Amino acid sequence: MGALTYDIDLEDLHFILFDQLDVDQELKVIPRYAEFDQAVYEATLAEARRIAVEVLAPINRSGDQQGCRLDADGNVVTPDGYKEAWKTVAEGGWVSVSAPPEAGGPGLPAVMSMAVIEMFIGAAMAFEMYPGLTAAAARVIFGHGPANKRDAWARRMFSGTWAGTMCLTEAGAGSDVGENRCRALPVAGEPGAYTLEGEKIFISGGDHDLTENIVHLVLARTPGSPAGTKGLSLFMVPKFLVNDDLSFGARNGARVTKIEEKLGIHGSATCVLELGAREPCRAWLVGEERQGIRLMFEMMNEARIGVGAQGIAMAGTAYHYALQYARERLQGSSAARFRDPEAPRAPIVSHPDVRRMLMTMKVYAETSRSMLYRLGHRLDVAFNDPSKRDRYLGRVDLLVPILKAHCTDLGFEACVTAVQVLGGYGYIGEYPVEQLLRDAKITSLYEGTNGIQAIDLLARKLRMNNGALLVEWMQDASAECARGKSEGFAAESEALEKAVNVCGQTAMQLGALGAKGSLDATLLQAYPFLQMMGWTHLGLEALNQALAARKAIAEQGESPHRKGKVANLRFYVANLLPQAIGLAKRIQAGDETCLDPTLFAGD
Amino acid sequence: MGALTYDIDLEDLHFILFDQLDVDQELKVIPRYAEFDQAVYEATLAEARRIAVEVLAPINRSGDQQGCRLDADGNVVTPDGYKEAWKTVAEGGWVSVSAPPEAGGPGLPAVMSMAVIEMFIGAAMAFEMYPGLTAAAARVIFGHGPANKRDAWARRMFSGTWAGTMCLTEAGAGSDVGENRCRALPVAGEPGAYTLEGEKIFISGGDHDLTENIVHLVLARTPGSPAGTKGLSLFMVPKFLVNDDLSFGARNGARVTKIEEKLGIHGSATCVLELGAREPCRAWLVGEERQGIRLMFEMMNEARIGVGAQGIAMAGTAYHYALQYARERLQGSSAARFRDPEAPRAPIVSHPDVRRMLMTMKVYAETSRSMLYRLGHRLDVAFNDPSKRDRYLGRVDLLVPILKAHCTDLGFEACVTAVQVLGGYGYIGEYPVEQLLRDAKITSLYEGTNGIQAIDLLARKLRMNNGALLVEWMQDASAECARGKSEGFAAESEALEKAVNVCGQTAMQLGALGAKGSLDATLLQAYPFLQMMGWTHLGLEALNQALAARKAIAEQGESPHRKGKVANLRFYVANLLPQAIGLAKRIQAGDETCLDPTLFAGD
Repeated sequence: MGALTYDIDLEDLHFILFDQLDVDQELKVIPRYAEFDQAVYEATLAEARRIAVEVLAPINRSGDQQGCRLDADGNVVTPDGYKEAWKTVAEGGWVSVSAPPEAGGPGLPAVMSMAVIEMFIGAAMAFEMYPGLTAAAARVIFGHGPANKRDAWARRMFSGTWAGTMCLTEAGAGSDVGENRCRALPVAGEPGAYTLEGEKIFISGGDHDLTENIVHLVLARTPGSPAGTKGLSLFMVPKFLVNDDLSFGARNGARVTKIEEKLGIHGSATCVLELGAREPCRAWLVGEERQGIRLMFEMMNEARIGVGAQGIAMAGTAYHYALQYARERLQGSSAARFRDPEAPRAPIVSHPDVRRMLMTMKVYAETSRSMLYRLGHRLDVAFNDPSKRDRYLGRVDLLVPILKAHCTDLGFEACVTAVQVLGGYGYIGEYPVEQLLRDAKITSLYEGTNGIQAIDLLARKLRMNNGALLVEWMQDASAECARGKSEGFAAESEALEKAVNVCGQTAMQLGALGAKGSLDATLLQAYPFLQMMGWTHLGLEALNQALAARKAIAEQGESPHRKGKVANLRFYVANLLPQAIGLAKRIQAGDETCLDPTLFAGD
Repeated sequence: MGALTYDIDLEDLHFILFDQLDVDQELKVIPRYAEFDQAVYEATLAEARRIAVEVLAPINRSGDQQGCRLDADGNVVTPDGYKEAWKTVAEGGWVSVSAPPEAGGPGLPAVMSMAVIEMFIGAAMAFEMYPGLTAAAARVIFGHGPANKRDAWARRMFSGTWAGTMCLTEAGAGSDVGENRCRALPVAGEPGAYTLEGEKIFISGGDHDLTENIVHLVLARTPGSPAGTKGLSLFMVPKFLVNDDLSFGARNGARVTKIEEKLGIHGSATCVLELGAREPCRAWLVGEERQGIRLMFEMMNEARIGVGAQGIAMAGTAYHYALQYARERLQGSSAARFRDPEAPRAPIVSHPDVRRMLMTMKVYAETSRSMLYRLGHRLDVAFNDPSKRDRYLGRVDLLVPILKAHCTDLGFEACVTAVQVLGGYGYIGEYPVEQLLRDAKITSLYEGTNGIQAIDLLARKLRMNNGALLVEWMQDASAECARGKSEGFAAESEALEKAVNVCGQTAMQLGALGAKGSLDATLLQAYPFLQMMGWTHLGLEALNQALAARKAIAEQGESPHRKGKVANLRFYVANLLPQAIGLAKRIQAGDETCLDPTLFAGD
């Protein structure tokens, strides 16, 4: 066995973008994207792939082994090679390829950004967190920062001269954001300026040596603000104070006191950030006072999509490595000759149980990728076509918790499966899959645990606009199933239509249960409900891909990749979709045993 | 939040042993166990718990951080505290409490051994591998070693003066044992003596500093032996040669050249062992030539039960830590007051989604534990009651692959769930659950991957005695369901009976498919088949526990623990058992999409 090498299946990216979503034609009519065409997109993807393979993948394992370290002044030193990689990413405009031209960005559509970050994450997830969070913070500052600062600061962040972070979590306020205790005191005579006092934990990239400055976006409470999330305001806090001419002033009072030891993503410094302990911590209000949670949610939507992308990228990389290994590793013979010790040894890719595992990973990666890119595409269209805006943004709202939770669950499962395909070799550091498993696990935990996503879906998203989001999803799904039935996938489309209807019925039932006041019994079903929606939605993506593949076969000829999309749909409907029905039955049965208060009560 | 502390729920162990299995009364009639009574068993468990909590748990985290290191002579240095822990374990007779008195062992029943190792593994899985493998090797040597050595060597191993290992795997022979290339050359004029040449990999405890000597059991091929597993013989290879008076001679030529870097179990040295490279490697035949694979399977059965116990112990520990955390950690308020920021913060154990996770872990741990102890109990009775021997050993044969694969899958899942309950804190090294996740992952990989277990079940165990093993399992299951129906669990028992019947039908269908010659299509269903059997069997354990609990409530009064067993059954049948039916439907549908040879074919 040689070493496994990272790569990405550009054929699959091209298929989704150009055959399935037809982004080239769809976006051409939008003025801000009119100058781009398929050739530009393909060249962008090819160059991003080159950077992922040649620049990022090589620092992934060493970054994991070396990790980050902290000096006595609260300065974080990143692993070897991170600075050079950052330079490549920053100089090429890759911090965010969808950063707006008004802020100096490349201005590519969001869907291209999804493809690029998937490749970068897949190559080096821990590294890519620095640009990913920087772009998310820059977007908030560009939209809502103080008028005299926002353009210049956002421009420096998008270009990778500065970096950015998000600072929500405190020791007592993880899932419970409203418990934030960090205080913001106005600076007399300087409107919009504050000093902060408090401590934030779990701050990704809370300090590092990749950029000249770092801008923290921090949730804090101004004097007299109410308790809970409604009393929170958002502030920007630079590591170094910035003069009006953009030269740097003093070190600001936001210092890292600790880097957490973690299961994975060792290259990403997870920091405890002390505000105002050693020197005053100067901050500037973003948006208005008490708008903090709204702005943070705006940023969080992007961050949650980014975490979904992490799950998807991990699934893709896990599949890539497992397939590469399975093609080369010889063990056993064909089943027909298993009693014959002289039979030639077979690559394990030929063993049925390994094929079952590979197929599961393939389908996870490819249907989730389809979901992610389509979501990016909807954002592009929504922001540029008022007639579609509400419906498309509503769809994104509905799907974000599903993408974040279900696709990260599947991404982690794919990494576990890759370890299983490699057997004992999967467990040792010589092969890259044990790191994938460790890195991927964070995705179900941060930016709102997956349990929080399920509550967001059931208690918030399903209630928006009187339930319109789910109804619209069902309408589109039914139309897609009707198309599937008339275009050669009758059995699969019928199974999917049944699952869609079951989702609707289950939502109604849970709505009625909640209306009756049985809140705990309703919330108990939140996670199964999200999973049911997730399995159904990814099945719809498989159908959409199979339809696009059939069209591409008719127009451009057969290929293994296109045939593989039809296989994905058949496998999905036979082996994975039944879980949606199973979950629906469980939800409808409504077992409440575990709510019995005598359980878990202790002594 | 304070630190989480290890402990074990002795009440649950007592319940299984004395209320459910009634081992005290059952074993009293067996002469070799006649001297033991419940008081002895309880005292043994209490002392084992004390050692687990006070001696083993404290070295688990430090052993993980420190790991093992190798000196230039191939000597492994174990983490700090391991030697002292070994001393306690060895001196107390805890290497194997079921080691036979004829070999100096305590002679307790196997079922007690299951309980003890579960506690020790749960406290420090990596450490407990050294005694666990030593006991397994000692048993083979005691049974089949050379007549002039076996008693003395086995005695030293059971007492912990020496240790033992199993050496099967080679770089090209992991799942494919028949590919073993290690050679054994007879020593002229010394019957039973050989020299070995070759290299073994993934040898747990391949060297260490815990004992004065180590005896490796090694698979190798004698001259003229056929290819494949049938040509393999088993040898014992001491680290230091042993004179007739049991004093030590020269260092033998079995040397460690590398310790693998691994995802977890860092305290257990996973070694590359070179045989005969630096000095000759002297070996003594165990059993007869070409009996190696049979003897190794004998040892492997015990080892696979041990791995199942690891999965179960990890589930129990994961549940213990998650519950402890959930009772203390405050986040959010009750659902009824979620809009009120002044509502008191609630411990997360009160949140429905957390209760769903805890209940799942509880049921995994407790039903798996019931399965493990019952299996140990059957072994005790089988070896001492000829009238039950065949049926009980047949049951053990049937259940070992299910225990090894399904219970380790659930054990790992429980660890992942514990991480999820702890949220971001689950991901950091300050809390013990990320280590559990890393340690537990090995259990699906070694002693035959879980995929290999599935093939063992379907292609070997189901065919033994013309399918009698499954038929007998179904008979006993039906009788249990009939009892359940008449004793107050009608609905649950009916659901279980349906699942049992579905298992039988599915086995018949797969048998017919195999008989038709569709071997790949049959093997494709091996894993789903094992899972279906696993979900059904653990449901039967839940029923058996609920019945025992109801009896105990009637005779001894109600308690939260006893009520919890009834809750387990209800939860299991409503939420977990449906997976058995879902898997059966998938198997019966028989989708073969992933066998399409154009998939995974590469360029």
